[in-house]
Amino acid sequence: MKYRLYTPGPTSVPESTLLKLAGPVHHHRTAEFRETLKQATALLQYVFQTTQTVFTITGSGTAAAEAGIVSTLAPGKKVLNISNGKFAERWAQVCKAYGIEVEELKKEYGTHVTPDEIAAKLKSSHYDAVILVHSETSTATTCDLAGIGKAVRASGDTLLIVDGITSIGAFPFKMDEWGVDVAITGSQKALMLPPGLGFVALSQRAWSAVEANKSARQFYLDLAKYKKSIANNDTPFTPANTLIEALLVSLNMIKDETIEGVWKRTAANAQAFRSGMQALGLKLFSHTPADSVSAICYPTGISDKDFRGQLKNKHNVHVAGGQGTMEGNIFRVNHMGYSDAYDTLAVVAAIEHVLNKLGHKVELGKGVAAVQHELAKSF
Amino acid sequence: MKYRLYTPGPTSVPESTLLKLAGPVHHHRTAEFRETLKQATALLQYVFQTTQTVFTITGSGTAAAEAGIVSTLAPGKKVLNISNGKFAERWAQVCKAYGIEVEELKKEYGTHVTPDEIAAKLKSSHYDAVILVHSETSTATTCDLAGIGKAVRASGDTLLIVDGITSIGAFPFKMDEWGVDVAITGSQKALMLPPGLGFVALSQRAWSAVEANKSARQFYLDLAKYKKSIANNDTPFTPANTLIEALLVSLNMIKDETIEGVWKRTAANAQAFRSGMQALGLKLFSHTPADSVSAICYPTGISDKDFRGQLKNKHNVHVAGGQGTMEGNIFRVNHMGYSDAYDTLAVVAAIEHVLNKLGHKVELGKGVAAVQHELAKSF
Repeated sequence: MKYRLYTPGPTSVPESTLLKLAGPVHHHRTAEFRETLKQATALLQYVFQTTQTVFTITGSGTAAAEAGIVSTLAPGKKVLNISNGKFAERWAQVCKAYGIEVEELKKEYGTHVTPDEIAAKLKSSHYDAVILVHSETSTATTCDLAGIGKAVRASGDTLLIVDGITSIGAFPFKMDEWGVDVAITGSQKALMLPPGLGFVALSQRAWSAVEANKSARQFYLDLAKYKKSIANNDTPFTPANTLIEALLVSLNMIKDETIEGVWKRTAANAQAFRSGMQALGLKLFSHTPADSVSAICYPTGISDKDFRGQLKNKHNVHVAGGQGTMEGNIFRVNHMGYSDAYDTLAVVAAIEHVLNKLGHKVELGKGVAAVQHELAKSF
Repeated sequence: MKYRLYTPGPTSVPESTLLKLAGPVHHHRTAEFRETLKQATALLQYVFQTTQTVFTITGSGTAAAEAGIVSTLAPGKKVLNISNGKFAERWAQVCKAYGIEVEELKKEYGTHVTPDEIAAKLKSSHYDAVILVHSETSTATTCDLAGIGKAVRASGDTLLIVDGITSIGAFPFKMDEWGVDVAITGSQKALMLPPGLGFVALSQRAWSAVEANKSARQFYLDLAKYKKSIANNDTPFTPANTLIEALLVSLNMIKDETIEGVWKRTAANAQAFRSGMQALGLKLFSHTPADSVSAICYPTGISDKDFRGQLKNKHNVHVAGGQGTMEGNIFRVNHMGYSDAYDTLAVVAAIEHVLNKLGHKVELGKGVAAVQHELAKSF
C-alpha cells in the first residue's frame, strides 16, 4: 500500500530530491560543494525574503534556534517570550539554560499574540528581544507577523526573534520587509528535505548584538564562525553535504514554482482541507489557523489511538497527534512542501472512512465534495 | 568516468545504504523509528565495544565532541589536551570557549603521546581530564590507547576523553576494556554514512561528572536530555531520521563482517597501501601511522595542486590534501569503511600514473606489485 505522510514535519520529499540522496557521496572541501552551498544560500535568501545571508547548520531546527538566540543575547539580557505552545515554550527553556532573563507572555493554546498586545508590553517595560513562533506547529496557530514586526520596530532597539520553522516557505514570511531580526527554520518542513539541517538568518541589528555579546559560550553553534566561513562559501564544521546537495534540488523546485506560487498552493490546500473538515462537522483547534498545518479536535468518542491507528494500519496514511496536554484531543495534518490538491483530497477521504468505521457516522463524500468546491476556486 | 572517493571523511557509502536514503521519508515519533534507533544503538555499542549507551546526535563529530566535553567538564576544570594536529587543537578551543582551563601538551605533527608521557604528566599535576585524538585525521597518526587508558586510570579520577572519529569502527577501539570515559565519533568515516550524525558514549565515571556539573549551559548539546529520551528509544529533538534508518543498514554490514573482520580488512588495506607508497619511494608523514587514513609526503617538485588536480580531473580519484601548515606537504588517503583491496590497488595505480605524468618518474607497476604482495598475506 502506498505510504502517505501527512505529519507536519518530516513531510514528503520529492522523488528527484530523494534520488539525489542516493547518489555517490562527495567530499565537501571542494569548489563543487562551495558552488552548491552558494546557490543554496542564494535560494534560501529568496525563500526567507531577505538580503541577509541564511546560514545552514547541520542539526535540527532547535539547533538553529539556539544558535540564533544565544549568539545575539548575552546572559542577563531580558526577553519577552510568547508562550502559546510546545515549541514556543522550548525557546523560553533555551533562554533559561543560558541565563537569559525570560518573561513569558502566556497565551491559551490555539491563540496567539496581536500587534497591539506586543506594543502594550513593549511600552510597559524594556525587553532586549521578543521571541515568538510564527506558526506554532503544536497547535497550528499563526499570528500577524507583519503587524508585530511594525510594533517591535516602533519600540526602539528590541530584537524580534522568530521561529519560522513551519511558516518559512509555506506561507508569506518577509524577513526584511517585516523587520524580523532572527529568522529560523528547519529542513524537514516546507523545504522538502529530510530532517538534519537548520537555517538561521540575522538582520544587521542582530549582527550588532552578536558583536556586542562578549559572554557567548558556544562552539558548534557560534554563528560568528559560520559568518567567517560563508565568506568563502564554506562551513566551519563538516556539513551534512549530501543533504545540502539535495536541498538545492528542492529549492530549485520552489524557485520554478515561485515562492508566491508555493504560498498560494499551500493556502488553497489548507483552505480546502479546513472546508472538508467543517463539512464533516469537525472543529479546528486554532483560533487563528496557520496554512502550513491544521489541528483538528477529535469528536467525542473518537480516540487518538483508534483514529490514527486505523489511518495508519488500514490506509497507510500518517497524520500527527497532539503533543503534551493536547495529546488525545487533536490530530494534525500537514499542507507544507511536496503536497498537492489531490494529497489534500486523499487525506480527507481517508478521514471519512475511518470516522465511519469508528462509529462517528459522516456522509461519505461530503468532506471530499467540500474540498472539491474549494479547490475549484484555485484551478 | 567512475567517481572514486578516497578522502578520510566523507568516505564511500554502500549502495544499499544510499538506496535506503532514497526511500520515502517517515515520521520519527513512531514505534517503527524507536525500534530502528534501538537496533542502531545496540550495534553502535558493539562498534564502540561498550555496554554504555551510545547517543546519536544530529550534527557533526564536533557537535558530539562538544556535547561530551562540556557536559562532563564545568568551567574552571583543568584539562590536559594532547595537541598534535588540527582536530586535537580544536578540542582545546572548545574547552577555552567554555572557560575550561586547558594545558596543551604540544607534540610535533605526525607524532603522538606515549603512555609513559601521560603517566609522568599525571604525576606532576592533577587534571580533571585528558583529551586526545586516537587517530588524528590531519596527520594520520595514532597512539597506544590501551596503554594510555591504563596510565590514566592509575592516576585516580582523571577522565579520559577520546576523539575516535577516525578510529572507532576502523581499527581496534575498546571503550570499556581500555577505560575510555568519553568516546566520540562521526557518521561519515568508518560507519559508512554521509555526514550529519555524531555519536558519543560516556562511562559511569563520566556520567557522575555530568551529574556533578551544575554550571553546564547548553540545550541542544545537553547529554542529560539525550539520556532521558533514550530510555524510551527516542531523541530529545527531531533527529536526522533518514540518516539513522540508513545507519542501521551500514551497521548491519559491520555486524555481518564482524568488527574484528572490519579491523583486519582495514589494517590489511592500510598496510598494502603503505607498501605501495614505499615501493614508489614515497614517505609516510606519520611516525605512528593509523590504519584508517594514510598521510604521504609529496616528493620534491610535486605540487598538491597538480597532483590532486590530475587525480581528480583525469582519473576521477579524490584524495585529500594537507590542512593548515601541512597544506602542500602531504596528501591523505582513506582506508576506512566501504573500501576494499581493489580500491586500495586502484588508488596506488592512479598515483603511479599521475607521478609519471608530473615528471616524478616511477616504475609503472612497482607500487601495485607491492600492494599485491601485501594483499596476498590476507587472502
